[in-house]
Amino acid sequence: MEKIDLRSDTVTHPTEKMRQLMATAPVGDDVYGDDETVIRLEKTAAELLGKEAAMFVPSGVFGNQVSVLTHTKRAQEIILGEKCHIIEHEAGSVALISNVQTRTIDDSTGEMDPREVERIIRKAEDIHFPHTGLICVETAHSTGNVASLENLQEIRAIAKKHGIPVHLDGARLFNAATYLGVEGKDIAEHADSISLCLSKGLCAPVGSVVAGTKAFIHEARKNRKILGGGMRQAGILAAAGLEALEMRKRLKEDHDNALYFGEELDKIPGIRVHKDAIKINMIFFDIEKENFDDEKFVSHLKDRDILINGQDGGLYRFVTHYYITRERMDAVLEILREYFR
Amino acid sequence: MEKIDLRSDTVTHPTEKMRQLMATAPVGDDVYGDDETVIRLEKTAAELLGKEAAMFVPSGVFGNQVSVLTHTKRAQEIILGEKCHIIEHEAGSVALISNVQTRTIDDSTGEMDPREVERIIRKAEDIHFPHTGLICVETAHSTGNVASLENLQEIRAIAKKHGIPVHLDGARLFNAATYLGVEGKDIAEHADSISLCLSKGLCAPVGSVVAGTKAFIHEARKNRKILGGGMRQAGILAAAGLEALEMRKRLKEDHDNALYFGEELDKIPGIRVHKDAIKINMIFFDIEKENFDDEKFVSHLKDRDILINGQDGGLYRFVTHYYITRERMDAVLEILREYFR
Amino acid sequence: MEKIDLRSDTVTHPTEKMRQLMATAPVGDDVYGDDETVIRLEKTAAELLGKEAAMFVPSGVFGNQVSVLTHTKRAQEIILGEKCHIIEHEAGSVALISNVQTRTIDDSTGEMDPREVERIIRKAEDIHFPHTGLICVETAHSTGNVASLENLQEIRAIAKKHGIPVHLDGARLFNAATYLGVEGKDIAEHADSISLCLSKGLCAPVGSVVAGTKAFIHEARKNRKILGGGMRQAGILAAAGLEALEMRKRLKEDHDNALYFGEELDKIPGIRVHKDAIKINMIFFDIEKENFDDEKFVSHLKDRDILINGQDGGLYRFVTHYYITRERMDAVLEILREYFR
Amino acid sequence: MEKIDLRSDTVTHPTEKMRQLMATAPVGDDVYGDDETVIRLEKTAAELLGKEAAMFVPSGVFGNQVSVLTHTKRAQEIILGEKCHIIEHEAGSVALISNVQTRTIDDSTGEMDPREVERIIRKAEDIHFPHTGLICVETAHSTGNVASLENLQEIRAIAKKHGIPVHLDGARLFNAATYLGVEGKDIAEHADSISLCLSKGLCAPVGSVVAGTKAFIHEARKNRKILGGGMRQAGILAAAGLEALEMRKRLKEDHDNALYFGEELDKIPGIRVHKDAIKINMIFFDIEKENFDDEKFVSHLKDRDILINGQDGGLYRFVTHYYITRERMDAVLEILREYFR
Repeated sequence: MEKIDLRSDTVTHPTEKMRQLMATAPVGDDVYGDDETVIRLEKTAAELLGKEAAMFVPSGVFGNQVSVLTHTKRAQEIILGEKCHIIEHEAGSVALISNVQTRTIDDSTGEMDPREVERIIRKAEDIHFPHTGLICVETAHSTGNVASLENLQEIRAIAKKHGIPVHLDGARLFNAATYLGVEGKDIAEHADSISLCLSKGLCAPVGSVVAGTKAFIHEARKNRKILGGGMRQAGILAAAGLEALEMRKRLKEDHDNALYFGEELDKIPGIRVHKDAIKINMIFFDIEKENFDDEKFVSHLKDRDILINGQDGGLYRFVTHYYITRERMDAVLEILREYFR
Repeated sequence: MEKIDLRSDTVTHPTEKMRQLMATAPVGDDVYGDDETVIRLEKTAAELLGKEAAMFVPSGVFGNQVSVLTHTKRAQEIILGEKCHIIEHEAGSVALISNVQTRTIDDSTGEMDPREVERIIRKAEDIHFPHTGLICVETAHSTGNVASLENLQEIRAIAKKHGIPVHLDGARLFNAATYLGVEGKDIAEHADSISLCLSKGLCAPVGSVVAGTKAFIHEARKNRKILGGGMRQAGILAAAGLEALEMRKRLKEDHDNALYFGEELDKIPGIRVHKDAIKINMIFFDIEKENFDDEKFVSHLKDRDILINGQDGGLYRFVTHYYITRERMDAVLEILREYFR
Repeated sequence: MEKIDLRSDTVTHPTEKMRQLMATAPVGDDVYGDDETVIRLEKTAAELLGKEAAMFVPSGVFGNQVSVLTHTKRAQEIILGEKCHIIEHEAGSVALISNVQTRTIDDSTGEMDPREVERIIRKAEDIHFPHTGLICVETAHSTGNVASLENLQEIRAIAKKHGIPVHLDGARLFNAATYLGVEGKDIAEHADSISLCLSKGLCAPVGSVVAGTKAFIHEARKNRKILGGGMRQAGILAAAGLEALEMRKRLKEDHDNALYFGEELDKIPGIRVHKDAIKINMIFFDIEKENFDDEKFVSHLKDRDILINGQDGGLYRFVTHYYITRERMDAVLEILREYFR
Repeated sequence: MEKIDLRSDTVTHPTEKMRQLMATAPVGDDVYGDDETVIRLEKTAAELLGKEAAMFVPSGVFGNQVSVLTHTKRAQEIILGEKCHIIEHEAGSVALISNVQTRTIDDSTGEMDPREVERIIRKAEDIHFPHTGLICVETAHSTGNVASLENLQEIRAIAKKHGIPVHLDGARLFNAATYLGVEGKDIAEHADSISLCLSKGLCAPVGSVVAGTKAFIHEARKNRKILGGGMRQAGILAAAGLEALEMRKRLKEDHDNALYFGEELDKIPGIRVHKDAIKINMIFFDIEKENFDDEKFVSHLKDRDILINGQDGGLYRFVTHYYITRERMDAVLEILREYFR
């Protein structure tokens, strides 16, 4: 990994250790439950998330979709935040696969207001109403926001009161846990099912895990087959996944780096970092220069082997991860200081 | 119709004239396009709505659903108001039948903010995004709200700019037209397709009409068959529907009655009518009495052959229609004056 | 009805008595269960079919589709005959609405082989297999075939053994009952749900009935709403439907007429009637003349106000019904004798 | 791989070479088209299959399902063989994901009769008919059958005549090519799209490839995202996949081994090998012994580290692959000779 890639933590490559583990992992035919490395990954993930069982799936989208399919019946309604991944970035999948109506509410802070959630739950048995079949929460968000334990707890309590399950899109669950200073299971306990990405900040090349009760995972395995996510010798990927779970312990480093990076960036005249928004491994900033040329800026950095996304709604986002070391941040800062001089 | 039914205009029975027309209508097998009365209804409706073609369907829900199915492709996203009938009262149908993701925005005033609509249209070709396949507007709403022509026009302009069709749920289109003082087609021109109920204030027993381009209606006929809405000698119902279209001319009477009823109700101490909200044939009021017993109130009126719905969010709704004459309103007022003394 | 329409029994118009009943029927808002005529129709139909409850729907396709939706879960497999109406003539609806995989077997005789049915039931709990969620039978077929009671009984026994429900498409149930010399309920007892058309030979203008257990119909009512089949003052149609149920008693007349018509047609040189195939109200024949011009034949009759379909796979089908009296058959025979001279 | 696993070729583990390639493969974020190893795999596969473009997917089921989704529109009908993988072993996926009606015909020989295919294509534009949207063929089958080039060619010609695309489930395409003595592309040219498994006989741990026109693959990429099959650093798997494609050249060895194994097994008294049925890497035999105890037999071999499936419809199937060498076959034969003495 030569280039300094600040676009996202999805760009992380497997580490050398992961590659070695993949090269030597014992594998079997997982469709028949014969792959011992997959079994080990699923057991470890279930324990870390405080759930009875877990299942390996090919992607974060897959983990969310197979969970919604398993929780719901067709023509039900599900409640989610407007900015959540399922609505924003899963290409309409939830309507195609699960035939459920999506009811969206504000989650721009990273939390849905529990009173709003309760308000839109379909309470009466009315022939005109779809049944509310699921509430989806998410933490940490790709906006860098983290929901508080209290918020998740309150939504879960409402859900329970109305007999509705809760699914947690925990693609970056351990980033949220790191920020809150708790264990993953302390968050996961406020949901019936969780999907967790092994890639992103955890560096596995491919794969996510879904966790829940034994009965839920049993049914989800059938649905994984239906959706084409049954993979044969998946132990190769699970080997990297097991190491990825270990790497949750070093996420604090990425968060500390984000704080350091934010502090230093903010010192550069012309750059205004939203310092309060640095919670996980993401730094957001805007540039206070008249007629600033976004494309030229991106291209200038690219020529120096630094990859960033262009501004989105006036905001730039830098993401720290395993391959963004202090040295590399300092190198980037040096080039930026020069550029903004 | 002995009882005074103020619950809704959906309770309207066919008029005597409609019954006579149904008893004598020439009919044929409409699945083969052989029913001359249906053909006449569809032609008349198309003209009134300023569209090339129209199609008879069994219900308002059916009209909306067959329209969404015809406009969209699976896994697309459609934009609608939070309070619209498709979201609120069609039992999750749109996700089951059309496999589209619903993206909802505020329409509590009866209008969606055109800027909000534009904001959530998926503009980029991004593999993560569903394509925005349809925008649904509604007027008049069951909340009594009517969208302005300007609002509909503006949303249509945005839709056109992005190459997206607009469907208008015009279940009570002629109530909206009556309020605005325009023709039905003046509203309908701001949409690619319209569904219009012949029942409700127009008194037909059964049936709605969908209108649009010839190509749209041609495809919608196939989809009507798929959804089980192909009816054989539907001319019986179309005969009443033709008369229902004539009855649009008397909707002003219902609106005037609503204003009169609202004025008089408001004079009764304890009743506070939302007079500004009386636009079509609906009167909303709350009751300012401590410990007012809703159930007892409804039951007291029921014993006197007056049917009303209980309060919903603190509000009562009375709906005027063909069978709510001045005499009947006065009879109701008399009983209420007594009750609130 | 001036023309002699031999194309199908779907072309039947409502009788004068039906029109009078429709003109005077008491009605209400059936979505709220307020329509007493609909309630009476549903009660009568349930009794005739020996089931706990029944529900009025807009069409035969609708009756089948709402039944499949109510019986199944998504991604299940259902077993049906290759020639059945659901596969052949419902435009792919079952895959769109119910998301079930269709597994078809031979039913060219009007019966499916019970051993074949049992063979393709998914017996094992295997992650690769869809669950067999429903078996659909049909009688009488639009090919004129009637399944024996023994056949239906045997398929039901197999279904029960494997815990699978059976739906009977009984669009022409009373034709089958008339042929077998039994009551409708004697056939219906071999199915968990039945859909029955009130139009066709029974002459109602619009509508079908679905019958089953109370629990099934309760759930089906919700699904009817989802599919847009909730109709307001449907009592108008139910009034005709009640009379249609009475008309089952005269179907024998249509069958006798078919036998008479078949005998006489067969006497005409050049016409070869499949006399053994006349079971209900359908006569099939081929024409043994070299270079016989099908289009000219159809057009010759049309000019004389006789409507027939062109040959299909070499076969002509004439259908008798309420409006095909002896006099009218004799008139047709006269013209045909002339034509084939 | 200590045990001798004769159950299937799906049990093959990645080779040592594959593991080394996985450990060193350059990777990137494939969702953004940044993974050079995936790009190389897709290019190589497209060339081998004689198509413009290809796409990596997580499984064979996924490859078939994303292809059907890309070819069809909802409520269409697709034609397939009764025994094909999509019908038999994909858990009803095609109805859930693509909402298409499945029309099945006999393919017990490994071929569908082209006249049968043509017979059931929906030719007329009839409102009652679903449109025939796709024909699916398969070769080689998991029954060991291989379709002839003539058969595929004939079906394709019929499909073209009616404007219908053809999808080829080529999970074991190179086994079929090896049997026919042709290149993969010589088979693939008779289809618009192909899915090909890199696992099974080719030994990759995970993954399949779909190939077709550039436009088809472009749309399929979107659908892959919708179905949750977008994987990040999939180059790890693609590295093994590239080697798997090379391994097609050694499939003849598996086929020769199957012939040898079959010959030798047949010499054992009590075992009757269906020698004519040995076309690819599969041997089918029955056991001619009264009261032969299937479970005991399987268990006896399992105790000796030999894994086989129990009989299915009276037939045993042994499958040869990379890990079934002559020595291992001889070891099995020795044990069997002993057992049947």
